[in-house]
Amino acid sequence: MYYPEPIAKLIDSFSRLPGIGPKTAGRLAFHVLRMKEEDVVDFAKSLVNVKRNLHYCSVCCNITDVDPCRICSDKSRDGSVICVVQEAKDLVAMERTKEYNGLYHVLHGAISPMEGIGPDDIRLAELLRRLTDEKVQELILATNANIEGEATAMYLSRLVKPFGLKVTRIAHGLPVGGDLEYADEVTLTKALEGRRELN
Amino acid sequence: MYYPEPIAKLIDSFSRLPGIGPKTAGRLAFHVLRMKEEDVVDFAKSLVNVKRNLHYCSVCCNITDVDPCRICSDKSRDGSVICVVQEAKDLVAMERTKEYNGLYHVLHGAISPMEGIGPDDIRLAELLRRLTDEKVQELILATNANIEGEATAMYLSRLVKPFGLKVTRIAHGLPVGGDLEYADEVTLTKALEGRRELN
Repeated sequence: MYYPEPIAKLIDSFSRLPGIGPKTAGRLAFHVLRMKEEDVVDFAKSLVNVKRNLHYCSVCCNITDVDPCRICSDKSRDGSVICVVQEAKDLVAMERTKEYNGLYHVLHGAISPMEGIGPDDIRLAELLRRLTDEKVQELILATNANIEGEATAMYLSRLVKPFGLKVTRIAHGLPVGGDLEYADEVTLTKALEGRRELN
Repeated sequence: MYYPEPIAKLIDSFSRLPGIGPKTAGRLAFHVLRMKEEDVVDFAKSLVNVKRNLHYCSVCCNITDVDPCRICSDKSRDGSVICVVQEAKDLVAMERTKEYNGLYHVLHGAISPMEGIGPDDIRLAELLRRLTDEKVQELILATNANIEGEATAMYLSRLVKPFGLKVTRIAHGLPVGGDLEYADEVTLTKALEGRRELN
């Protein structure tokens, strides 16, 4: 043990975060040492606050500090469409487009038999409960474009069939700015399949 | 503002750390959300602890929670040698070699006219005070091998001349495991200059 205990503990805390190895953790801890005390106290407070003052929205399961969350309680939003995403981060990514004005549902995961995550481990029951509301007309499945995301979308589309809703899946294809040359085969196949007529 | 305020604040705190951009900050904040509450509280406590319970050793200026620090108060260490390093991190790097048993002096910086850091801005006065102790016989200059580190070493070696000490500089050369092919010219020149006879 070369470091005094307080800094060793902080390095340990930092290195438990994802993508932060012991070297980076050390660099961060030494940075904290040079920060203003009020900033450090602020940092510490926001850490605890996030854990204590955030919970899931009782409607859409998004993380929120008020219940229902700001999106669910926003009367100007279109209540007839629900966009299903895996994580709260995905919701934020969708919001950033400023193109979507419907509601959301956050699953907090995707079905993944490999990791032992089944339909009961994600927020599907909450979604089904919402679909009994007659206002809902379309369900946009915006889960990730990987195996787990696709499986979840497939599962969900079958599960909600009895509700007689329009169920859509976000498009797969070449990302904007992407080169055909560097696109993988699967993406190109999807892009071909999803081709649309130009007017 | 798409994020609820507590998480937005935490993302902001994380992104003020060096080398952490907004995307990584977001990922870390969401990770905190999934951490156990006790771990988060622990993390917050260690942040504040580092700031409140650490200070500089009154002898060697290393960061420490006891004064004098554990190295300065360790009677088994050789008090006749002082290794001068720029940062507390460098001291830890030296300690990791397990080859050095003398004392240290942490300058907390290096002379850098470009950044407006002069001899009075680093812990030189504290070092000179230690040199009046007759026990000290050798000063090892282990500042970094860059312009600032070299300048500091040069300055220091002249400054301590009146004390009549042995002043040494750590060797420059090819790092162990390094290929000649990839070494830069300056390193190679230093490696040549510093060549030693094989027995």
